[in-house]
Amino acid sequence: MIKDLVSKNRSYRRFYQDHKISYDFLKDLVNLARLSPSGRNLQPLKYFLSADEQTNAKIFSTLNWAAYLKDWNGPEEGEKPTAYIVILGDTSLTTNFMCDHGIVSQSMLLGAVENGLGGCIFASINKAKLKELLTLDDHFEILLVIALGKPKEIVVIDEVQDNDIKYYRDENQVHHVPKRSIEELIVNKNQSKK
Amino acid sequence: MIKDLVSKNRSYRRFYQDHKISYDFLKDLVNLARLSPSGRNLQPLKYFLSADEQTNAKIFSTLNWAAYLKDWNGPEEGEKPTAYIVILGDTSLTTNFMCDHGIVSQSMLLGAVENGLGGCIFASINKAKLKELLTLDDHFEILLVIALGKPKEIVVIDEVQDNDIKYYRDENQVHHVPKRSIEELIVNKNQSKK
Repeated sequence: MIKDLVSKNRSYRRFYQDHKISYDFLKDLVNLARLSPSGRNLQPLKYFLSADEQTNAKIFSTLNWAAYLKDWNGPEEGEKPTAYIVILGDTSLTTNFMCDHGIVSQSMLLGAVENGLGGCIFASINKAKLKELLTLDDHFEILLVIALGKPKEIVVIDEVQDNDIKYYRDENQVHHVPKRSIEELIVNKNQSKK
Repeated sequence: MIKDLVSKNRSYRRFYQDHKISYDFLKDLVNLARLSPSGRNLQPLKYFLSADEQTNAKIFSTLNWAAYLKDWNGPEEGEKPTAYIVILGDTSLTTNFMCDHGIVSQSMLLGAVENGLGGCIFASINKAKLKELLTLDDHFEILLVIALGKPKEIVVIDEVQDNDIKYYRDENQVHHVPKRSIEELIVNKNQSKK
């Protein structure tokens, strides 16, 4: 059921690094992206896939991890992601990618979760450096990076208290993510009731 | 399987208008949105739900249908959507919604498809008019509208030919959507093969 997948799809940042992911599996995820909606059906997104250690290390070096965890600079050796999908905007087709990269990210992450994997979406990236390291053509704009692996952490959802949405880790290294209540999200809850 | 859902989740624009959708079902979809990733975990999106005829008619009047179908201005009476989710950005929290609205749209549409429904994402909206018709507070920015219903049309995927991505209807009213090949989407297909 989609609700189970969406619930299990948390942002994971620590992984079993000995669990490898194949290039072909990444291709399957891109196929989910390919079949997802695209504004004006333009399909301006392209994908750089990485499942080998050398390329993974390059991508890792450009990511900013978990802004709210001040004492943690990212997963240590042994807990790093084992694959990445770099989502690119092809500026030869358009410079307005609307929210296509959000749509495809969710498709691909749900595909990962269904296969016992998980990941995290990065928008905070050293894009200039990454573009150079991957020798990407100039007409590609880096939009997001999805890090993937077999999750090695427990992530739980809490209710937001006092409007504080910052995630944190407790003393048992469990990662807590405060989520707003459904009542807070619906603006017309007293109308249209059936 | 997620691939089946993603494949079945086409953009549908004609519906069985006698098939009603409940307000509570829309709430369930918003719960899928609620449990989806959000940039910096800020969760700045809000939702206006409509499942009654009067509000549906207001929203319908502000949507621009299927830009590539020049001879068609939208579904006629009897084939209109029976519910809508208006995705709002709460500018009191941020003015940068990143691609959150894309992420939640895909979650909600997959939830609709799983329940035998379908829909279409609109970004081309008369936003000023819609804001007035729904008497939305000034601090809400309209980002997208998702139209929902029980699909009454067949949508098939074709391969893109000659870089033409425009969808069209054939003589049997089947809706064709050209999609780029997976080979076109992956920029480093000759690297990292395992």
